[in-house]
Amino acid sequence: MKIQAAVTPAQGEDFTIEKVTLAPPKLNEVLVRVVATGVCHTDAVARDLGISPYPIVLGHEGSGIVEQIGENVTSLEVGDHVVMSFAHCGQCENCLTGHPTVCSRFNELNFGGRMEDGTCRLHQGDTELSTFFGQSSFGTHVVAHERNVVKVDKDVDLALLGPLGCGIQTGAGTVLNRLKPAFGTSIAVYGCGAVGLSAIMAAKIAGCQQIFAIDVHESRLQLAGELGATHVLNGKEVDVVKEIKEASMGGTHYAVESTGVPPVVRQCLHALRPLGQAAIVGVTPEMNIDVHNDLMAEGKSMIGVIEGDSVPRVFIPKLVEFFKAGKFPFDKLVKFYRFDQINQAFEDSANGIAVKPVLRLA
Amino acid sequence: MKIQAAVTPAQGEDFTIEKVTLAPPKLNEVLVRVVATGVCHTDAVARDLGISPYPIVLGHEGSGIVEQIGENVTSLEVGDHVVMSFAHCGQCENCLTGHPTVCSRFNELNFGGRMEDGTCRLHQGDTELSTFFGQSSFGTHVVAHERNVVKVDKDVDLALLGPLGCGIQTGAGTVLNRLKPAFGTSIAVYGCGAVGLSAIMAAKIAGCQQIFAIDVHESRLQLAGELGATHVLNGKEVDVVKEIKEASMGGTHYAVESTGVPPVVRQCLHALRPLGQAAIVGVTPEMNIDVHNDLMAEGKSMIGVIEGDSVPRVFIPKLVEFFKAGKFPFDKLVKFYRFDQINQAFEDSANGIAVKPVLRLA
Amino acid sequence: MKIQAAVTPAQGEDFTIEKVTLAPPKLNEVLVRVVATGVCHTDAVARDLGISPYPIVLGHEGSGIVEQIGENVTSLEVGDHVVMSFAHCGQCENCLTGHPTVCSRFNELNFGGRMEDGTCRLHQGDTELSTFFGQSSFGTHVVAHERNVVKVDKDVDLALLGPLGCGIQTGAGTVLNRLKPAFGTSIAVYGCGAVGLSAIMAAKIAGCQQIFAIDVHESRLQLAGELGATHVLNGKEVDVVKEIKEASMGGTHYAVESTGVPPVVRQCLHALRPLGQAAIVGVTPEMNIDVHNDLMAEGKSMIGVIEGDSVPRVFIPKLVEFFKAGKFPFDKLVKFYRFDQINQAFEDSANGIAVKPVLRLA
Amino acid sequence: MKIQAAVTPAQGEDFTIEKVTLAPPKLNEVLVRVVATGVCHTDAVARDLGISPYPIVLGHEGSGIVEQIGENVTSLEVGDHVVMSFAHCGQCENCLTGHPTVCSRFNELNFGGRMEDGTCRLHQGDTELSTFFGQSSFGTHVVAHERNVVKVDKDVDLALLGPLGCGIQTGAGTVLNRLKPAFGTSIAVYGCGAVGLSAIMAAKIAGCQQIFAIDVHESRLQLAGELGATHVLNGKEVDVVKEIKEASMGGTHYAVESTGVPPVVRQCLHALRPLGQAAIVGVTPEMNIDVHNDLMAEGKSMIGVIEGDSVPRVFIPKLVEFFKAGKFPFDKLVKFYRFDQINQAFEDSANGIAVKPVLRLA
Ligand SMILES: [Zn+2]
Ligand SMILES: [Zn+2]
Ligand SMILES: [Zn+2]
Ligand SMILES: [Zn+2]
Ligand SMILES: [Zn+2]
Ligand SMILES: [Zn+2]
Ligand SMILES: [Zn+2]
Ligand SMILES: [Zn+2]
Repeated sequence: MKIQAAVTPAQGEDFTIEKVTLAPPKLNEVLVRVVATGVCHTDAVARDLGISPYPIVLGHEGSGIVEQIGENVTSLEVGDHVVMSFAHCGQCENCLTGHPTVCSRFNELNFGGRMEDGTCRLHQGDTELSTFFGQSSFGTHVVAHERNVVKVDKDVDLALLGPLGCGIQTGAGTVLNRLKPAFGTSIAVYGCGAVGLSAIMAAKIAGCQQIFAIDVHESRLQLAGELGATHVLNGKEVDVVKEIKEASMGGTHYAVESTGVPPVVRQCLHALRPLGQAAIVGVTPEMNIDVHNDLMAEGKSMIGVIEGDSVPRVFIPKLVEFFKAGKFPFDKLVKFYRFDQINQAFEDSANGIAVKPVLRLA
Repeated sequence: MKIQAAVTPAQGEDFTIEKVTLAPPKLNEVLVRVVATGVCHTDAVARDLGISPYPIVLGHEGSGIVEQIGENVTSLEVGDHVVMSFAHCGQCENCLTGHPTVCSRFNELNFGGRMEDGTCRLHQGDTELSTFFGQSSFGTHVVAHERNVVKVDKDVDLALLGPLGCGIQTGAGTVLNRLKPAFGTSIAVYGCGAVGLSAIMAAKIAGCQQIFAIDVHESRLQLAGELGATHVLNGKEVDVVKEIKEASMGGTHYAVESTGVPPVVRQCLHALRPLGQAAIVGVTPEMNIDVHNDLMAEGKSMIGVIEGDSVPRVFIPKLVEFFKAGKFPFDKLVKFYRFDQINQAFEDSANGIAVKPVLRLA
Repeated sequence: MKIQAAVTPAQGEDFTIEKVTLAPPKLNEVLVRVVATGVCHTDAVARDLGISPYPIVLGHEGSGIVEQIGENVTSLEVGDHVVMSFAHCGQCENCLTGHPTVCSRFNELNFGGRMEDGTCRLHQGDTELSTFFGQSSFGTHVVAHERNVVKVDKDVDLALLGPLGCGIQTGAGTVLNRLKPAFGTSIAVYGCGAVGLSAIMAAKIAGCQQIFAIDVHESRLQLAGELGATHVLNGKEVDVVKEIKEASMGGTHYAVESTGVPPVVRQCLHALRPLGQAAIVGVTPEMNIDVHNDLMAEGKSMIGVIEGDSVPRVFIPKLVEFFKAGKFPFDKLVKFYRFDQINQAFEDSANGIAVKPVLRLA
Repeated sequence: MKIQAAVTPAQGEDFTIEKVTLAPPKLNEVLVRVVATGVCHTDAVARDLGISPYPIVLGHEGSGIVEQIGENVTSLEVGDHVVMSFAHCGQCENCLTGHPTVCSRFNELNFGGRMEDGTCRLHQGDTELSTFFGQSSFGTHVVAHERNVVKVDKDVDLALLGPLGCGIQTGAGTVLNRLKPAFGTSIAVYGCGAVGLSAIMAAKIAGCQQIFAIDVHESRLQLAGELGATHVLNGKEVDVVKEIKEASMGGTHYAVESTGVPPVVRQCLHALRPLGQAAIVGVTPEMNIDVHNDLMAEGKSMIGVIEGDSVPRVFIPKLVEFFKAGKFPFDKLVKFYRFDQINQAFEDSANGIAVKPVLRLA
């Protein structure tokens, strides 16, 4: 079928919306009409840094409605409302034991440009277009494997839900699936973008006693406070480590680092108490770490977490339930754009004007 | 009373055995006649780098026999065979929940030079001598708080047991108390000194399927093999990361890094599989870490561990049981010295001639 | 000193308030002026069933102010506001690893009638009076070991806090320390007395998605709803198991059974989903259990929990913080009585007129 | 195709080997030539108690060689050596999070008599024959879903491996996947049949310090000793609870109850120490339990475990590795029979003559 998709023709180029061809779903795959799709930092990375082969249709936070099911699909029906998440093999040790975010084929299936069977579903004339995260949601329709298509409640505004498939589940899952804060503990969240703010909402759900939000933008800190932060700290204005250590009587039990900025990563470690755990979820470059003093001498940990260590088909429907109950108001992070505003949406995301841009496709 | 002790008069100076005065035990303290004491890398650090005030009597792996008990001591009797371990307050959140190695007063009580009540037990003339690790075991007698004095089985050669109080429990506890390897998993141990070899013996007890030992000395690798390593790798001769990844089908589930050498720390991270955990137990300087690629992208963790996260009064008697049963033959690491050979023992330790020197005092 | 205390002279007899003698605190003990004390079901059991030697001064949920400290007390000062909890030895494997509620000397120290050193602090003429739970809080003053005396925030009404030492921590700790509900899970709480209602408040803190409260008194169910239950079920009116299974899509992940009534215990097991865990905290007699069908066939567990598996000096101050923040409003359970109304308070507790009676002593 | 299968024509009747028709594998299914199959207690239950519809071909511990693969099979190839385990849906919350033994469709898929798609693969004339555990291994060939077909190492005698799919993994997994014994702990295993002896081998792998084996047959106790039990107790001759409590200084940390005999279940609870955990894996009838005294008063747990809480495709290959390494010598439990001796094998199993009968089919 013919669809409209935002093509990234080559490294670093702007998105151009074009007519492309989408092949029908194969075994265990479904065709989804995309209603909306989030814009995530990883899309910008893939546009600019060549982590997947070009030309490519990016987008990996799609939500939509199932229009057709391929052979052997048992978990989905035509008309289902769905969110699409990352691809994973379902067969490796980590997949089979409930950790698909560290699937042994994660990079190949999400960044390799092909579907699980090694073929493409998208073409432009004779040219194959790479698939991204097993979905390529920057298009009016996608074909995806049922394994990364999550059925969701129809009572919720479907256009909002796409970011649950990546950015939102990354922040929320890091807290709820991986750190699992013990009762009466404290957490510091560095960076109040979509990931950090989701971590803050999650920390509130988990009953953390103190939730520190750290950012350099007052507007984001204000939003952090509305979403559950008990203390907000502007990294430009205060001595973050000192403030946290004082208010938490010696440092926080947990931290979520989402900025990827080396001096902030170091603050994050310094402001932990003995035995504290820092989850690293930002894209961080090579940096200097004083391993003995910042980590070992007080039994601290740095824990890399991808996609919130979540099983999307289990975790995302629960997030939707908490959203419905008013306990996970991630809609406050969303700013809608028309599909043809895609380049603007990326710019606003990069400038901090939008926390979580979402493109409406239908 | 008058005792013989190896005094460190000032930073960087050799030990000199001198007659000093030891005050009697106060409330909850005991007087122990030292039978033997291990020599640990941290003693050399304290001798050379000024982490505790001089003059000081170092030594923190003492074993001996209780000669006198202070008021209010209920857990020990005169004649008990004991091992001395690190000091801790017993009152803070971490102590009360079974993690005394991250006691909030750990540094003060072990490196501050004073007993828990702020006074000294050792004097030389009018000069106060600092206490080390609440014991100062480089002397013929020590006074220690009952909290860090561990009663042990009398059927075992007491002269061997001192190192259980620090170096041996560090390696063994890191595996058995903190990493707790899941069934059928693999572990890599970097550095085959006393800590690393103890980790290897522990990994064998825990039933690890593959145990990789990495060092640059063939003699240590041979000992590693005798103690349970299933694969030994000389870091000077082979590509360690490549060998481990191949043999373990993608990297190990766990690692224990005991060398503190930055390039080895990086190897340790590279050779982990997705979701792998590296326990950091070596004294490591500031170093460059590629946080995204080496840690986050595959959900790996770096976990600082002190003293094996052990509760000495629980853990050490169990290690002794396994030693008695032939399953924890840490005696193979020990090389005995006379007390007056203390400077030689440190030299042999630094040169790698002795894995774990033990000074006999009685 | 002379104090007023409610003496239980013999099995099954009413309390009589009499003048008795209290010895001064010994080593590590403190003298506390009791401000108030909760009335717990275990007091009635001890009055009626001979589990401790008579004559005895019962009471084990005391709160008060430290008036005098014995030798060697370091964690408390005169004037401190305190809550008293259960006695434990502090030396056994379970105590040292953070599980004092299963101390190997628990029964001896709490029900044996003597302090830790084997002596009594209370006398009436020449007659020794047994101590209960290391405190005997049904008196104007008590002597207790610092280990079971918990310092609390002075900004809170001290008269309310005694029940944190037993009944409230039992319900809250069972959820927060032992079950630790995973995100998005469901829990059913059977019995809405002080323990059950505390479990409900805790489940709300922990972010449970569904909280079922089951009781046969509408007033208690209403209170349960105010405190956080999302579903309330009157066991006299509805088919509890059927309702829960439907609303929770197959049964709850967790349950807390506080009634001790065998048919309710069975309901509790039936209404769990596969892999579900039931914490047993009620005093339950011998009863018939269909081990295969009710437990094994779906991988369910029955978990006995005492005193919420809590470390009082860590857990109770945290509960106080949540109370201050309005998130743990256990004051709604409390009904105050004058000390001389003690027999009335017990009657009201037995009849269900009072959820948690508290006697004011000062 | 025509195959030979042992049909159970109706409740309680002997097996009769007959020629039946096997349909080819459908999507995601494979055809396996059965080399051997274990005989498990559950087969006898299904023969005698009507838990699945008759006529039926029982058998659920098959091993064999893949002869044909259905469409969409990616994890298996013709010629692969395989073990077949229980069926599970792969889609429910428990399956997706690594707990397929408590799959929400477990009973339907294993005992309902049909494959996952609701149809049968086996016929006798016009009569449908029920499938058992998604395999029906009492036949020369089976068709099974790739999800419950586990590829195994070809270097091992394939005829031995079938019991890994149920009885052996039940005992071993209960210890290694569910109880995960902490270092230096003790365990008691009640009943030394295939399940109990597998638990003993597993406890040895896990490094338990004390392993108590309890049975009433000396031959089984001797085998238990050979496989790793440190203490063997004949329940007819000694006071089991007293002996265990003495030798373990207060009771064991863990227990595995595989007899299903109520008085033994009670012993199992009595001989636990405070905080002890008893895994229940035997088929136990309704029985009296003193919930307060035997469970709650000392914080003990009863934990139902099915199929060792294992993920067969992860766990079974690891068991094979340990078998190859000589650390899991489950072959000592196996007694081989010809296929036409199937009724004899069941009789020998019931009489205790064979611990684990295995029928050779090829
Ligand atoms: Zn995978
Ligand atoms: Zn993303
Ligand atoms: Zn401490
Ligand atoms: Zn040391
Ligand atoms: Zn204790
Ligand atoms: Zn009570
Ligand atoms: Zn399932
Ligand atoms: Zn079976």
